[in-house]
Amino acid sequence: MANNVVDPLYGRRVEDVLATRFKRVSTVVLPDGEAHKTGETMNQIFDILLGQGHDRHTTIFALGGGVVGDMAGFAAACYMRGIDYVQLPTTLLAQVDSSVGGKTAVNHPAGKNMIGAFHQPRLVVADIDVLRTLPRRELISGLAEVIKYGAVFDEVFLGWIEVNLARLLALDNDALMHAVRRSCEIKAEVVASDERESGRRAFLNFGHTFAHAIEAGLGYGCWLHGEAVGCGMVLAARLSERLGLIEPQRARRLESIIKSAGLPTKPPEVDDKLLVELMRSDKKSVEGIQRFILLNDKTGAVVAPAAEELVERVLLECRLA
Amino acid sequence: MANNVVDPLYGRRVEDVLATRFKRVSTVVLPDGEAHKTGETMNQIFDILLGQGHDRHTTIFALGGGVVGDMAGFAAACYMRGIDYVQLPTTLLAQVDSSVGGKTAVNHPAGKNMIGAFHQPRLVVADIDVLRTLPRRELISGLAEVIKYGAVFDEVFLGWIEVNLARLLALDNDALMHAVRRSCEIKAEVVASDERESGRRAFLNFGHTFAHAIEAGLGYGCWLHGEAVGCGMVLAARLSERLGLIEPQRARRLESIIKSAGLPTKPPEVDDKLLVELMRSDKKSVEGIQRFILLNDKTGAVVAPAAEELVERVLLECRLA
Repeated sequence: MANNVVDPLYGRRVEDVLATRFKRVSTVVLPDGEAHKTGETMNQIFDILLGQGHDRHTTIFALGGGVVGDMAGFAAACYMRGIDYVQLPTTLLAQVDSSVGGKTAVNHPAGKNMIGAFHQPRLVVADIDVLRTLPRRELISGLAEVIKYGAVFDEVFLGWIEVNLARLLALDNDALMHAVRRSCEIKAEVVASDERESGRRAFLNFGHTFAHAIEAGLGYGCWLHGEAVGCGMVLAARLSERLGLIEPQRARRLESIIKSAGLPTKPPEVDDKLLVELMRSDKKSVEGIQRFILLNDKTGAVVAPAAEELVERVLLECRLA
Repeated sequence: MANNVVDPLYGRRVEDVLATRFKRVSTVVLPDGEAHKTGETMNQIFDILLGQGHDRHTTIFALGGGVVGDMAGFAAACYMRGIDYVQLPTTLLAQVDSSVGGKTAVNHPAGKNMIGAFHQPRLVVADIDVLRTLPRRELISGLAEVIKYGAVFDEVFLGWIEVNLARLLALDNDALMHAVRRSCEIKAEVVASDERESGRRAFLNFGHTFAHAIEAGLGYGCWLHGEAVGCGMVLAARLSERLGLIEPQRARRLESIIKSAGLPTKPPEVDDKLLVELMRSDKKSVEGIQRFILLNDKTGAVVAPAAEELVERVLLECRLA
């Protein structure tokens, strides 16, 4: 399975390699973009898989970014109650985040990733060479998640990112290699300790409560996921600051790294009331009270509720900053 | 979640009991019957759950037969990547089979239970009192699975069924209690030893390769699942006999029990070529070769392929028997 942007670039080469190992290889090309990560596309995938007579021994290879990976993974989770899949992520964001950890899902008009499954890939192959054909905007979007690992889990890594941002943006091989490897290490370690997100795994969603609301509020596909996460981390850091959990300079430093990466730091033109409402239906909500992943100078990170008025004030502050 | 037949009978009582334990209880009534066990109904369930603001801490209670149980279970498996569910089976078939073991799924035009997940219920409550309002045809359908446990796993239980069939059909409390308990014991033991069906769990599908083809060939909902399983077991036993795996008298004895239970022993008026073709896309198929669960006098049961010509001959033989 490949998206319609990546397939012309790498589809044939992947197919040729797989043909040396598998009896039968068929390619399914999916439309790219969050807007297509829906139940309808899933149904099309099932129609094709069943139409081509695939059985429980078929392995799905997901060639592309997070959208293809999420859909291929969810299709693999449900097809005949679960078949194998392999992630071949071609965006920085997918290489450092979505391809690792087994979260699969599709979106629903009421919210992102609402329908899905935990289903671990058998293998993730992150080849940084493919990042050379990645649009710059997509590269920058991926950096948001790299920054997230530093901000929440690894102070040393955050310092390294700060110093090496220019090399990363210039596609320096060694820098990319280190960023992808360290990100995957952190993610794998967190997921291994808490696969079903009963605790620590939730910290990986730092900035994502805001980000999901931004994406849903704008309509999926307007902002890239990483762009929304960049802005979401600025908002979440400022919320942490307002709640007295971190020193102001920690929020400012993170804001500055996000800005230097070329990511947005101000919320888009969406009504703040709508954003707050969308957050209420976030998966982390408990009985309609939204909970946020917040930075905490003492404990690293924490999951905590926040009053809607405070959330609105933080949104306004960041707009005016 | 309840189907539209059971809800008027027991919905309110269940709701009242749950209201003593949960802050908020809402009822979703689903259309009954295999024909509605589809992706579209799933989407309706997700729309309702999201529309009502249910979060990860919601528990779904499935009140009804296998159709509601399978859909509620699959919805629970996918909703926000997995929430809890409880089975409240109201048919004999669901009590002895589908509610236990965590198999959930919906049908696809290309085959039964093609899209689904393994997701264990937190609890299964089988109250045999509800079987008093069950239509007789449904009761008989459930007996097919009870007979299956005896036929494949427990010779002593098969003997007990043979002797107590009249009591079961007369809704004798003690007989029903024993049949449900022993069936659940066998199923739980098999599933615990092989949850993902890499081996022994497949034996639970004795008769089901034929049954699924019959159901799909007739159109879901014409024959009840247990009726198709009854006939499927007759066909599978005869196929086992033709392959020299069991003595003829074992096939005849099983056929006679199935007939005495009031289950069909002859395939319905569907073209045998179509049935064979439908079996080819069965989930147990490997590269288009259908595999059958067969009885074996030496080892109990076995999963093995069979030539399509032999399968057609067995279908014809049973028609003429």
